[in-house]
Amino acid sequence: MKWPSHGSNPHYLFEAMNLPFPSERVDFSANINPLGPPPIVKENWGSLFKVITEYPDPGGTVLKKKMAEQEGLQESQILLGNGGAEIISLLGRMLSGKKVVIVQPAFSEYEEACRVNGCQVEYHQLQPDSWDWIGDGLCEKLAGADAVFLCNPNNPTGVYYPKTMVLQLLEECRKHKCLLIVDEAFYDFLAEYESIAQYINEYPNLIIIRSMTKMFAIPGLRLGYLLADPSVIKSLGSFQPHWSINAIALKAGEWCLDCETYISETITFIEMERQRLFQFYKERNLQVSPSRINFYLLKDPSMEDQLPFLKYLVTRGMIPRHTVNFPGLEGRWLRFAIKGRSDNDKLMGAVDEWLNSRL
Amino acid sequence: MKWPSHGSNPHYLFEAMNLPFPSERVDFSANINPLGPPPIVKENWGSLFKVITEYPDPGGTVLKKKMAEQEGLQESQILLGNGGAEIISLLGRMLSGKKVVIVQPAFSEYEEACRVNGCQVEYHQLQPDSWDWIGDGLCEKLAGADAVFLCNPNNPTGVYYPKTMVLQLLEECRKHKCLLIVDEAFYDFLAEYESIAQYINEYPNLIIIRSMTKMFAIPGLRLGYLLADPSVIKSLGSFQPHWSINAIALKAGEWCLDCETYISETITFIEMERQRLFQFYKERNLQVSPSRINFYLLKDPSMEDQLPFLKYLVTRGMIPRHTVNFPGLEGRWLRFAIKGRSDNDKLMGAVDEWLNSRL
Repeated sequence: MKWPSHGSNPHYLFEAMNLPFPSERVDFSANINPLGPPPIVKENWGSLFKVITEYPDPGGTVLKKKMAEQEGLQESQILLGNGGAEIISLLGRMLSGKKVVIVQPAFSEYEEACRVNGCQVEYHQLQPDSWDWIGDGLCEKLAGADAVFLCNPNNPTGVYYPKTMVLQLLEECRKHKCLLIVDEAFYDFLAEYESIAQYINEYPNLIIIRSMTKMFAIPGLRLGYLLADPSVIKSLGSFQPHWSINAIALKAGEWCLDCETYISETITFIEMERQRLFQFYKERNLQVSPSRINFYLLKDPSMEDQLPFLKYLVTRGMIPRHTVNFPGLEGRWLRFAIKGRSDNDKLMGAVDEWLNSRL
Repeated sequence: MKWPSHGSNPHYLFEAMNLPFPSERVDFSANINPLGPPPIVKENWGSLFKVITEYPDPGGTVLKKKMAEQEGLQESQILLGNGGAEIISLLGRMLSGKKVVIVQPAFSEYEEACRVNGCQVEYHQLQPDSWDWIGDGLCEKLAGADAVFLCNPNNPTGVYYPKTMVLQLLEECRKHKCLLIVDEAFYDFLAEYESIAQYINEYPNLIIIRSMTKMFAIPGLRLGYLLADPSVIKSLGSFQPHWSINAIALKAGEWCLDCETYISETITFIEMERQRLFQFYKERNLQVSPSRINFYLLKDPSMEDQLPFLKYLVTRGMIPRHTVNFPGLEGRWLRFAIKGRSDNDKLMGAVDEWLNSRL
């Protein structure tokens, strides 16, 4: 069976599993803000029509300026991307033929982008239940490595590594002349997040990847960015196609940067739902990853391979993300996005049915 | 002075020329259908809001299937791109370090994409007034070349090279084990266009680039595609970021494929306006390129360098595309898109004023 490489677009999963596509379904496989796009995007949607008839500003000047102000950085330290995926692809290109270490499990595009560019890829494998990575051999792997990919908060576990731990690794990386690439695609779902963006000024080996499509629920638009030393930005930018970020994403991105209240409402909502879900799983002796954000890993500990559980759920239209292509997970967990209240209720109902069917 | 590398986004031109940005202006520097996007896109704009909240289909299955049917090709012979620019960028990547011949003058992204990938770039320089390329040394350049870039109809001249000429070159390229990359970004503006798409089945060395943003006036959305042998599609696709084509472009693209009447109305309108403009220029002894499509080169033959003419027009808010970065033109022509009737009238008015100011 050829599993789809990512969540979302669930018809690919049903095709792979040779199952009929249910008419009623809830997609838990994409980690998108369940509150949807911020009201400003919906309210002004009509006005976006006019921007499609002109070429987007290839420099993305207005958006970049606003970002620079918010981050306290220079525009020359920012690269806009056609989604985080383009940025990872450009990084892979820059690292062509080099040796990279990926802290696994992690978003599969790092490895994909590195492999296609002939990189030598080594894993630093995290283990359940703590998924901890400090003091257990990561630093030893830095000798001879050109870059480390760290997803923080981690996708797929939802675990957050605090600033002090990241800075310690950053310093070790500098000693080894190694880049530290921190993918912060989900940083804005984290109430206790402490920014490391300012360290770009001190550490030219620090690269931060960000996404605007998760918090602002605009994955269809594609919008990500990268924070790094100007020399890195220039090098990556030289490989980027002209007009790579579409005009709708540029404009919606500007609006989203003003949505601070929306972010805190989202965080509060997710926190509440996560507690509710985790309490539910705990009462039923199901295992979860210690996630601090908008998705989590789930496991029925009565089985090693979760395929029967996955199959049971998807035939009922409850669609998790399989974990077959996450090194260290390989199907022994399922990943779920935290959705709206009634969708989470539906999931819990289906999980209870699954548990009852096993009695 | 650092000239902007492309038309559109005219504020970059005014910055480069150190001129104030006029409040009233007509942008003739972007070759976009003056009738705007097809009505179906405008009428259904509201319904597109919902597609932004989900990841785009990374395979672009629905759009690709429809394209394949229209072209009489297989889906495996089509690659969708984040605008033609991404496709050119991927081609440059594939040709990394190889020897390419560019028929010049041409869209500057071919050279840009080749240079950044360490290609050895050779020009085949066309000359005014015929801009003809057969039998004058192009075939001799094929020995040792890995690829030829041909823009047809040509940007910036608007000249069209008929099918028989292209097929002759294609055959020569095959003999020399050389790819022929034909950029047909403006093919649909041409009433007399004869498709060469079917030759992909016979000639694995044929690659066709297409754009949907010019005819359908959606450059802000980014949508292009490439037709080629499945092996080429696979190779290029491996370097493409995941979800590279946004969901709005995929959906609008589907709709645009049904707009045949809109295309013929556009062709008729452009033809009429082109005749009107060319008659006007002829009566004033100004030179134009023998364009068959929606833009043309213009020259005041009383001067070699057209900078004074350019300056005169832009200060009046009439904005042509400079030609400084087109090899063989280097500022000795100006390029103009054919716009709506009243905009073209304004341009003719400004040209008359310019001519009177020179008496």
